[in-house]
Amino acid sequence: MPSQMPSNRPAQPQTHMLSDTTRAALAESRPGHALPRAFYTDQAVFEDDMNAVFYREWLFVGPECELPEPGDYVTLQVHEAPVIVLRDNDGQLRAFHNSCRHRGSTLCQKERGNAARLVCPYHQWTYDLTGKLIVTRFMGGDFDPKDFPLKPVHVTSIEGLVYICLAETPPDIENFRAAITPYIAPHEPRKTKIVAESTIVEEANWKLVIENNRECYHCAGAHPELLVSLVEMALPNDQRFADEFRIMEQKAREWDALNLPHAPVDGGVEFRCIRLPFREGAYSMTMDGQPASKKLLGELTEPDLGSVRAFRVPNNWHHFLSEMIIHFRILPLGPNRTEVRTVWMVHEDAIEGWDYDVDRLSEVWVATNAQDKELAENNQKGVTSPSYTPGPYSEISEFMLINFTEWYRDCLSRYEAGDTESRTAAE
Amino acid sequence: MPSQMPSNRPAQPQTHMLSDTTRAALAESRPGHALPRAFYTDQAVFEDDMNAVFYREWLFVGPECELPEPGDYVTLQVHEAPVIVLRDNDGQLRAFHNSCRHRGSTLCQKERGNAARLVCPYHQWTYDLTGKLIVTRFMGGDFDPKDFPLKPVHVTSIEGLVYICLAETPPDIENFRAAITPYIAPHEPRKTKIVAESTIVEEANWKLVIENNRECYHCAGAHPELLVSLVEMALPNDQRFADEFRIMEQKAREWDALNLPHAPVDGGVEFRCIRLPFREGAYSMTMDGQPASKKLLGELTEPDLGSVRAFRVPNNWHHFLSEMIIHFRILPLGPNRTEVRTVWMVHEDAIEGWDYDVDRLSEVWVATNAQDKELAENNQKGVTSPSYTPGPYSEISEFMLINFTEWYRDCLSRYEAGDTESRTAAE
Amino acid sequence: MPSQMPSNRPAQPQTHMLSDTTRAALAESRPGHALPRAFYTDQAVFEDDMNAVFYREWLFVGPECELPEPGDYVTLQVHEAPVIVLRDNDGQLRAFHNSCRHRGSTLCQKERGNAARLVCPYHQWTYDLTGKLIVTRFMGGDFDPKDFPLKPVHVTSIEGLVYICLAETPPDIENFRAAITPYIAPHEPRKTKIVAESTIVEEANWKLVIENNRECYHCAGAHPELLVSLVEMALPNDQRFADEFRIMEQKAREWDALNLPHAPVDGGVEFRCIRLPFREGAYSMTMDGQPASKKLLGELTEPDLGSVRAFRVPNNWHHFLSEMIIHFRILPLGPNRTEVRTVWMVHEDAIEGWDYDVDRLSEVWVATNAQDKELAENNQKGVTSPSYTPGPYSEISEFMLINFTEWYRDCLSRYEAGDTESRTAAE
Repeated sequence: MPSQMPSNRPAQPQTHMLSDTTRAALAESRPGHALPRAFYTDQAVFEDDMNAVFYREWLFVGPECELPEPGDYVTLQVHEAPVIVLRDNDGQLRAFHNSCRHRGSTLCQKERGNAARLVCPYHQWTYDLTGKLIVTRFMGGDFDPKDFPLKPVHVTSIEGLVYICLAETPPDIENFRAAITPYIAPHEPRKTKIVAESTIVEEANWKLVIENNRECYHCAGAHPELLVSLVEMALPNDQRFADEFRIMEQKAREWDALNLPHAPVDGGVEFRCIRLPFREGAYSMTMDGQPASKKLLGELTEPDLGSVRAFRVPNNWHHFLSEMIIHFRILPLGPNRTEVRTVWMVHEDAIEGWDYDVDRLSEVWVATNAQDKELAENNQKGVTSPSYTPGPYSEISEFMLINFTEWYRDCLSRYEAGDTESRTAAE
Repeated sequence: MPSQMPSNRPAQPQTHMLSDTTRAALAESRPGHALPRAFYTDQAVFEDDMNAVFYREWLFVGPECELPEPGDYVTLQVHEAPVIVLRDNDGQLRAFHNSCRHRGSTLCQKERGNAARLVCPYHQWTYDLTGKLIVTRFMGGDFDPKDFPLKPVHVTSIEGLVYICLAETPPDIENFRAAITPYIAPHEPRKTKIVAESTIVEEANWKLVIENNRECYHCAGAHPELLVSLVEMALPNDQRFADEFRIMEQKAREWDALNLPHAPVDGGVEFRCIRLPFREGAYSMTMDGQPASKKLLGELTEPDLGSVRAFRVPNNWHHFLSEMIIHFRILPLGPNRTEVRTVWMVHEDAIEGWDYDVDRLSEVWVATNAQDKELAENNQKGVTSPSYTPGPYSEISEFMLINFTEWYRDCLSRYEAGDTESRTAAE
Repeated sequence: MPSQMPSNRPAQPQTHMLSDTTRAALAESRPGHALPRAFYTDQAVFEDDMNAVFYREWLFVGPECELPEPGDYVTLQVHEAPVIVLRDNDGQLRAFHNSCRHRGSTLCQKERGNAARLVCPYHQWTYDLTGKLIVTRFMGGDFDPKDFPLKPVHVTSIEGLVYICLAETPPDIENFRAAITPYIAPHEPRKTKIVAESTIVEEANWKLVIENNRECYHCAGAHPELLVSLVEMALPNDQRFADEFRIMEQKAREWDALNLPHAPVDGGVEFRCIRLPFREGAYSMTMDGQPASKKLLGELTEPDLGSVRAFRVPNNWHHFLSEMIIHFRILPLGPNRTEVRTVWMVHEDAIEGWDYDVDRLSEVWVATNAQDKELAENNQKGVTSPSYTPGPYSEISEFMLINFTEWYRDCLSRYEAGDTESRTAAE
């Protein structure tokens, strides 16, 4: 009978059930509009988000320079999944589920550290840095340690930006790598160091945090510190900003001369990468627009490079300046709670007190994050109202939210259909 | 075909599904007895309560004198619904869902304030005080602001007591207005001011908080401060209190002479209004029974007026004394959490330090609220026991709880049947 | 018709429905391995645990010496069930659901106290110490107080260890009583007093707390203070500990001479009782191994008695030393929260400052509890990972976990089948 015949066809995709609430919200959702209420408030939708998005997509962890030496590790918590990312003795990045194969205890509790081997604090089962189980006690004759390696997690570094993927078969990330590398490589992210970090919790759904980041429609009313440097234009030919358009034209010529790419890449709904100028006279995201560090990154010689602005769904965005890099990472904590981590990087040889001052370097985004937290929390309270109906996005100012919600809905549909590949710019 | 023919019949009532737990609890419920456990503890019942009661009935907000000027507003949170109540430029009270029509952010974050226009803090969409959207930016040609007014909420003032209703078609409140106006108008609530307020959270279901308020069976054991003035009688002819019955007879004559109504109104299971005397020699709800404010309310000339005691299902009760008004408002926060807000009012021209002292004026009810909180929380812990079986109410001392639970069950049944009108005294 | 005929057969057992999640987890569970994830993390499983285990099995409350006089009571909270245990005027132990038969309020709020009668703080309904309702007010003619006694809870004292059972028909406990009495009676638990107590909350499922207690596989890596005295052997013939085996042989002879039983009793999967020696030279669980109290318990004359180690599923374990008794009781607070209470007892006539010092006496287990809390919490975080697969127990070091999980699975199955009797050692 046909159904019992061997087949050379590839395995059928694994389909999944979304919750009834998620499916109803999908059906209710309208393109170009904010998402229906349940997407921001409901526990079942949140679980679907974790399965369809955060357990399937590539997630930004942090800068690779956090892990310079063999045994260096960082940990993070992706919803219910604790994860370790480390550098092994061959210098290779590896990631594992942070759960001992004996009784499941987490192996590493600290946010970062160094370990020659991973020793479970519970019963001292010990793994080498490749995840191989090498020491146990009292496990009897039938027990074969080879059956109990740490469970691996996919990991890659894109020019020093560490990404992991918890899926068995991760979606493509090479398109992203190819697109952003020419933009960020001149800043040499691997040759930087973290000099400031902040972790805050916003009482808002992760999608509201992302939406908040995807438009500068709110900047004029909310972010005086940021607007010292930032221009509210999202594209070089943004019709709203004639003056800045002129700056862009001039900067484009200078950057072309420096061989620094700046035009927007085609990341489709998944990612964005572009170099945009700051306001006339501003070099950096500081309160006075002056450089945050005297030492320029990599081999850069020109301080006035605006910033390479990159983001990638679902959890990260970045600014690459001439002398500073700022990474932002979000991790969902619940339907209405999201962790936002910000790290500020300067050249690895920059000297604190001489080249840079930590407070001065971080104050613009510390203030901006606090403002965004308040906006996102107001937003959360309002969309929780049973009276809420999704309003229309501004096509001019909020087109990246149209992209984001389109990507998000597609993500859920692909999960349901068992399709691992996202639509990318190439399609 | 008949089903497609136009019809002159009124729209069919919209029926609703109660949760299985609520329906089982309704079936289990016995008249004259405390409610079954699930009504006090279960999340699904709580959601039904919000839909069937708090999103359908008239809710007390606070005194109208909080909103003297155009642009004055107060906010409150009815479960998941943030609401703004304000006075518009024509002096009219209006209420709106506190959620911007763009991306849903709350418009007003403060508990009270004044605003010439309602400007969303997110993207500065701006509404006038009638809810009309008057300013947006970058919204493109197709966008018509007329399609995006703030969503209105029904609001009315009954002699200065502000009530809102979140239902599309609110139930009748005119019967209540007609009944209580003659009792409270002489106290002129609109000509008062808030001089003290307290907001506490009781770890108890909202119905236990209401039940606690609906009987004085517990007063002797719990409320020494309150009993300085309060008589535990609920009706003028209460057989338990022969002495107080004599006071009542005498006071009735005095109040008749002053044209102050005092007999109990027929509010059925929905509301109550009655004037009852205090203990012999007590003029007010103070620790010594002496007036809380030297300045009598309105045109009143006689300090010994006992208090008009009024309540209305589901969320408020009030004392109107000769020189002070006290309003109590509850808002459910969860199956076992309820906010109780108390405000103390005196004549708008009374002078602090001369006419009244805030601590002295509020201390009886601050103490009584704290005692009731403890009683309600003990009650919550006990009804949560799987061993709990609802006991019988005292027909003499707890008849208002019999009324309340009857009203409550009926409320759920009417919601299920799609019936908006409650049974009132007139029926 | 047969179905309507009177029957002499015993009532059919009451079967129950387990949640789908529990049944799926049972099906997935493998003998000799840690439990599947849902057993440690899921709310529905937790509810099943409460119904199938904590509302059906005998639970340890505390030492009977807490209740020396008539009217002495202690309270505890078994998930949602508040319970009172007291001594009545005839000296008999009694236990009741802590919920008034009127409107359900808890009667006793304090952790311990003395009361001649139980007076409800709400409306002063009053019960005598046998649970009989003896005083009410205003309850009308139809009301018969005989219909409203406090609801009883089964209670028994096993040589001074108080156990309760919330089931209507409790499972057998006589087998346990018979087995452990000879071991603990010489320590005369009734003639002790509580001199120290500690209550901590571990953010871990109750089964992880129990599993942590059921093996000393983790002791070497975690408990330096405990290992001053404790030998990591679980049985007298433990092959891992040749040296301690020699101590055991010598101690066995000494204890035989003192008529103190020491061999392991056959408690099957339900309980354990054994006397095991401490390390050479250690007399007690103190930092230096020296006795915690100068006064030996009961009529004991020999300080070097190791400890009788007893536990009983689901919620208690104990150490009986020559001069000190330590009781441990757990109560689940949620799928990932458990209360652990420890009490330290010495001879009732021992004198503080002379015979014993509270800090010195409790410090080993205060430290050990804190260490176990951290281990259990790491364990909880790790088993919550979606990547978690249950690993194999060590048959040598973790055989009591194999027993425990076997008992637990059986408990759920018996609950589903309506079978009240557990399998015991006798079968």
